[in-house]
Formats: sequence, structure tokens, C-alpha cells
Amino acid sequence: MVSLSHPGRLRRAPENFLDDAQVRAVQSGRRDFLRQALVAAGAAASTGALAQATGEKLILEPQPHATTLGQPVAATGYGMPSKYERNLMRRESPGLTRVSAASVAFSPLQGMFGIITASGLHFERHHQGWHDLDPSQHRLMVNGSDETLLKRPSVFTIDDLMRMPAVSRMHFIECGANTGMEWGNVAVPTVQYTHGMLSCSEFTGVRLRDVLDFCGADYRKGRYVLAEGGDGSGLTRTIPMELVESGEVLLAYGMNGEMLRPENGYPLRLVVPGVQGVSWVKWLRRIEVGDQPYGAREEVMHYIDMMPDGTHRQYTSIQECKSVITSPSGGQTLLDRGFYNITGLAWSGRGKIRRVDVSVDGGRNWRTATLQTPVLSKCLTRFSLPWVWNGEAAILQSRAVDSTGYVQPQMRQLRAVRGTRSIYHNNAIQSWKVAPGGEVSNVQI
Amino acid sequence: MVSLSHPGRLRRAPENFLDDAQVRAVQSGRRDFLRQALVAAGAAASTGALAQATGEKLILEPQPHATTLGQPVAATGYGMPSKYERNLMRRESPGLTRVSAASVAFSPLQGMFGIITASGLHFERHHQGWHDLDPSQHRLMVNGSDETLLKRPSVFTIDDLMRMPAVSRMHFIECGANTGMEWGNVAVPTVQYTHGMLSCSEFTGVRLRDVLDFCGADYRKGRYVLAEGGDGSGLTRTIPMELVESGEVLLAYGMNGEMLRPENGYPLRLVVPGVQGVSWVKWLRRIEVGDQPYGAREEVMHYIDMMPDGTHRQYTSIQECKSVITSPSGGQTLLDRGFYNITGLAWSGRGKIRRVDVSVDGGRNWRTATLQTPVLSKCLTRFSLPWVWNGEAAILQSRAVDSTGYVQPQMRQLRAVRGTRSIYHNNAIQSWKVAPGGEVSNVQI
Repeated sequence: MVSLSHPGRLRRAPENFLDDAQVRAVQSGRRDFLRQALVAAGAAASTGALAQATGEKLILEPQPHATTLGQPVAATGYGMPSKYERNLMRRESPGLTRVSAASVAFSPLQGMFGIITASGLHFERHHQGWHDLDPSQHRLMVNGSDETLLKRPSVFTIDDLMRMPAVSRMHFIECGANTGMEWGNVAVPTVQYTHGMLSCSEFTGVRLRDVLDFCGADYRKGRYVLAEGGDGSGLTRTIPMELVESGEVLLAYGMNGEMLRPENGYPLRLVVPGVQGVSWVKWLRRIEVGDQPYGAREEVMHYIDMMPDGTHRQYTSIQECKSVITSPSGGQTLLDRGFYNITGLAWSGRGKIRRVDVSVDGGRNWRTATLQTPVLSKCLTRFSLPWVWNGEAAILQSRAVDSTGYVQPQMRQLRAVRGTRSIYHNNAIQSWKVAPGGEVSNVQI
Repeated sequence: MVSLSHPGRLRRAPENFLDDAQVRAVQSGRRDFLRQALVAAGAAASTGALAQATGEKLILEPQPHATTLGQPVAATGYGMPSKYERNLMRRESPGLTRVSAASVAFSPLQGMFGIITASGLHFERHHQGWHDLDPSQHRLMVNGSDETLLKRPSVFTIDDLMRMPAVSRMHFIECGANTGMEWGNVAVPTVQYTHGMLSCSEFTGVRLRDVLDFCGADYRKGRYVLAEGGDGSGLTRTIPMELVESGEVLLAYGMNGEMLRPENGYPLRLVVPGVQGVSWVKWLRRIEVGDQPYGAREEVMHYIDMMPDGTHRQYTSIQECKSVITSPSGGQTLLDRGFYNITGLAWSGRGKIRRVDVSVDGGRNWRTATLQTPVLSKCLTRFSLPWVWNGEAAILQSRAVDSTGYVQPQMRQLRAVRGTRSIYHNNAIQSWKVAPGGEVSNVQI
């Protein structure tokens, strides 16, 4: 049990559902009276001993929900969040792109828990908008760039694929451009916009390896796979065959227990664990086996890094080890001193998270955070660390270490190598400044 | 790679997005032509070599989604499933109870994947309906039945609880009455209605132990906890203190990365891993520490088992090891012979799933299924087994074994001990009969 060093931390209730007699019963421990009283009275409330103890005025209205019949089951065949949670939504960054069809909607990491992203809050990045495709009409074609590379070119229906052996795996997906604004010292205000092109789900589908085996792929000559999307952007990416052979690459139709959402590529997307989101081709319509990289537009002209010497860093698809504190984070305010639960997310495209360190003084001193279980490969890991805020200025940072021993770099270390003109592949340590007034803001140190 | 012994299994596509030249290119492997053609042509379709090979007529319309701009990002701040998936929903069993507010909506297990239940499909069981409570007005009171059992009676706001150290854990929740109709030989037609009072989520909240420590509970004398719900049913349940001391019992506000849904107790519910759902008190408003069991209505008069000798089996809260095949399952039809992926769910209230065996001949012969990872304690585990259907009658069964060595019983074995007049705690093996025509139905053997 962490010691809660700030007893005043708990504000007393401004209202209470107990009447005077019940409050006295609570405090004197007369159980029988208390029990009947509560079962009977439901929500009766009045000024009571508990309130006098706190010096707060109590509200007199009873609670209707404790005295009435509620909503029926299956009021909605498909449930939705509370009306009080409508502010927690994915949001577009206005003006980020010319048209909203070729844009981004960020996940609200500041209000999310654990590692699973509710599918309604999964981030969006489309190159030419999203479509709700009819799964009975959708097809996946599998062919070789040369008849010797794949013996049996085939066209699969979604039903065909759903009859094959399926696997379910929890993995993160991060856009290669996540945290991209920070390269140029643009301190985006909230974690939703700095790191919100990040989500994590349980994906279900068929191993691409099984399908290529079935089609008679030649793995000796066919060292590359081309994945092609069905939308108007004609998105294509090269996938190295080693990733397919590992069994990790999936033709996925399921996400968090149900079919993929339209914005996430329904009815079929590629899942390439550890690799940037653009390679997780949505509305997947074709897989080709080839004997050389394809040099597709989205890997030669985009998703590349402009280095200090003016050259381009290409084919860097793996999302390196990274972490971010999601609370407290930019835009939030600490209302009073005392105990806070520092929490955030860590992930690595190369394996599992081994350790996360947290600093409250801008990186001078570090403490090791607690990792929530399960800790899975190429999946988000939730970390947390108890912190007592003394009311003074602080700079919060998290630093992740993955199972390869790689340590997440400070922004200045990353800039020393990669410069300031990139858009993609920023995995630097994020700094949140806490002002003496409690306001939290994004700073670059 | 499992051998797919039925080449005819793959139906050729009734339409195709390639034109003749492209199809020839596919088959002759002229990559350059093919690549330009595909990037340019998008969705052009016509009768082609591929179709001639299959003898099927092709549809001529191009695919609009490959030639147009799609929907914008954040078209909905909160995403929803495809319009083609509207049939997959939780459903009430008509006439099961007198009013729909005190009823059940079952999860559609037959169409679900992996282990995580999409929150929109989480099963519902209410005693007096559900409410969408204002979290800023909700309070949790913690007291002792006697002032010596808890030093500091306290009232917590949701904000108070959300500032405390949080944990996230994946657990199943199953209603004690799940599969209850089967006791009396009522073979409910589909797995949604036989086993659909079962869901699994990542829950986030505060350990009840931490809150009781903070309030100064006496664990030597206070061996029981009373949990009380805020809705009109005045639902109360006794929780043994050992479970609280283990650190597993949570005051949960989060589910699958977002706040609890109203139907699941928003803004606060108790999470009691391994224990039947009724103890996971929703709209939680009070926790009391006591020195004896409370004998609440929902544990003395309900959620008890009528034994053959007329006595009642009480206080049996742990959900014993259980499993069910979700596909193929009742109401489905196998359209042709050949390969099928038998898949289902296994769980135990006493720990992890160690093994799942599958039989296709009503329990005479068993094969060990593959378990999907992660395999977590008191959490669903997804299993699967490849099966080639030869077109003859078959009876599909799954049998789970948990980490204590407990083996899920056959229905006849369970009835021999517990009789046929119970409603609750049926964890027997489920049998699905496959008729020669491919129709799957619920049979009791």
C-alpha cells in the first residue's frame, strides 16, 4: 500500500445520501439500524453530523435513481458511453491537412486507462478518407510478381479467410508521424495531439504466412511482400518476408472482439506488429510476393526522415522504444498539493518493455515505475508511480527501456543525430512542466 | 501451418477488380505492367482470364470506393461498427422476466473474437434497470459495522478515487445464472442465449484494500465486507475479506480504456475476479467492514442451488472452470465439407486455464486445443482446433482444465450431484450436434 501522505487530500462530500440518524449510526456502528435505514431510505439526504464535521452544507434532494425503476436491458442493442463522457472523443487537429478526408483524428490518451483502446476512440489516419465496405463484395487477391514466386494465385472472400485458423494478439499501432510536430520545437499543448496517433487493440485474423503457404509461395526467392489497399489512395507498402515468416503479420478482420471498424479498414487490414501504422494497410485488397523491394510512393517519397546533411533516412519502419506520461499531462491542472498517481504508456516495436523510469525534475533524478500486467511484446504497457506534489515547479518525464536494452533518448540526443527537419519517427522523451499554480504544459528541454 | 485438406474450399471470386491485361499480367508475372496498371486503374473490372478459369461470370461495375474520396476523419468523435454488422448485438431473451428493467441482455458470443468483449456488446443483467449517473454527484461511503472495525469512516468522490494509485487487470465476468436453462433440459438454441451472460474486459480502478488501509480497517476482526449498490434494487452482497486482502478486488471506474458504461455501473462498480457477477456491485455507493457475513437477500434467497435432497447450496460464489465452443455453435450451418476452425472460450474463477480438450464425437475421443496468448488468471482464454468435416453427423464438445487441476464435468456428472432443479452455477460441458446437412443444434447428452 502506497502511503497517502496528504490526509487533507480527500475532500468531504458536498452532499450525502444519509440522514442524521443514519450518519450517527455510521459513526456509532449500530449496524442493524443502519442496514434497515439504508435499505429503506435509499437516497434521503439532509444536513448531518458528517457534514457538520466537514463544515459543508448538504443538498436536500433525494436521489431519483435509488427510488425508481431504471432503463430496460438492450435499450440499445449496441451500448454507448455515458452522456457525461461526451467530451472524451477523438479529435482532428484543425488545419493539419487541406482536406479532412486525408487527415488525422487523435485518441484522447489523457482520459484513457490501461492498455486497450476502446474502438470508438481508436485514432484515425486516412490518405483519402474511409469507406464502409460491403464484406460480401470484398476480395483479397494473392499473387506473385512472377509465376515462380507463388504457385497458386488466388482470390479469397472474407468468408474464406474467416474459416481458416485464426489467431488473436494484442498489439499497439502508432503512426510514423506521431509526435512529429515536436521535431521543430512546436510544443503541441496536450498529449492527445502530441502522442494521440497511438492505439492498442486485440486483433484477430489469419497469419499471412499460412495464406502464402497455401498459395505455394517460394520463400527462398520471394523475400518481399507488397500490400495494397482498396481505397482511392492506392496505398502500397513493401513488407520484408522475415516479418511474415515470423508468423506475426496478420490478415486481420477482428479488433477488440468484433469486426474491424470502417475507419480501421473493415473488413480486412494488414497487422504488422512493431511497424509504423502506414504498413498496416487498410481495406486490404491484394498481396503480392516479390524478389525485391517495391519502392512504393509511401516508402520512397513519404515516411522518410530529412537528416541534418540533407540526405533522406528511408525504410525505417520499426517504431523504436517510446513512452509518455498521460496524466498529469499538458492542459491539465493540479488543483491542490499532495498525492498524485503519475501514469502513462510505454511501447517498443522491437519487443517487450523491460523498465520505465520517471523523473519529476527534468531528468536529473529517476525512479523506477510500476508496470501493469500483462507486459506483452509490441503492445502498450501501462506504468504508474505515486508522487506527492509539494506545490513547487516540476518537470515530469518518462524514459522507457525495452527488452533489447535500448533506452528512449532525450529530445536533444535525438536531434543531435537526426536534426530538426523530420516529420516521422520521433521517439524522444516527453517533458511536461508543472507550474507552481498547478498548470501543466508541454516544454522542450 | 495446418494442412488445408480441402482445396475446393476456396470459392473463386464472383467479381474481380482486374481487367484482362492485368489478369494475364498476374499469371505471367509481368510486374512492371501490373504495378502501373493497378495504381492507375483502381477498380476497373471485366470478364477476365481468372473468371474464365473459374467459369464464373464477372460483374462489370467499378468499385466506387477505389475511385472516390471517402469520409472525413472524426466524422464521428466516437466511432461505431459498420452498418453491415448491425445484426451482431446483445439481445434480451423475450419473456425471461416480467419487466425488461429486471432482465438480461446476452452477448453474441457466436460472432465475437479473441477474449476482449467490445463494451458495446457487454452482457447486461439488472435487478431494477440501469441509470446514467452524474459522476460529479456520486459518492462512495466507507464505514465499519462497529467503530472498532474501521477507524476513519469516509466519503469519497469519484475524483478522490481517480487520484489514488490505480491498477488495470483483464478479467471475465459471468452471471451465476449463465447456462441456467440447461439444468432442466431446456436446450436453448444458440450460444448467445446458453452462455451469453459472459464478458471480459480490462478493468481499471483502485484496490479496495488500499482504501480500507487508508480508512484504518481492522483486518483481524473485520473478516467480511458488505458492498451496496446505488440503484433501486438496493443490492447488497457479502465479500470475504481474504479476497480483498489478496489485492484482487477493485473499486473500478474504467473498462477497456474508457469509463465504465452506464449499464455496467458507471461511474463505480466492484470488481471481484472469479466471483459471479452479482457480487460485482454496480453504481457502488457503500462499503462496510463487518465481523460476520451479512446474509443479504441476494445471497440467502437468491443465487443459491436447489439440491436433489431439497436442501439449498448457499454462498457458492466462485465460478468454477468452464468452457464453450462458440463456432461452430447452435443455429449455424456448415455450408460444405472440409476445413473448419473450431474455436471457443474457457475460463475459471480459481486461476488460469491449463488445457482445453475438444471432442467431435460426443466425448469418446479428445484432442488438445491450441490456447491463444495471453493466458491470464480469472480471465477468458480463447482456444482453437483445426477440424476437417467429412459431412457426417458429429457432436462437438470442449472440456477445460484449470491450474488447480479441476476438470470441467459432463452434464450428467454434474446432475448426478446437483440434480436438475437449480438455476445457478452450471459449468457443465456444452454439446453442439452437427447434422449431416450441416445444421448445428444444442443437444444434451
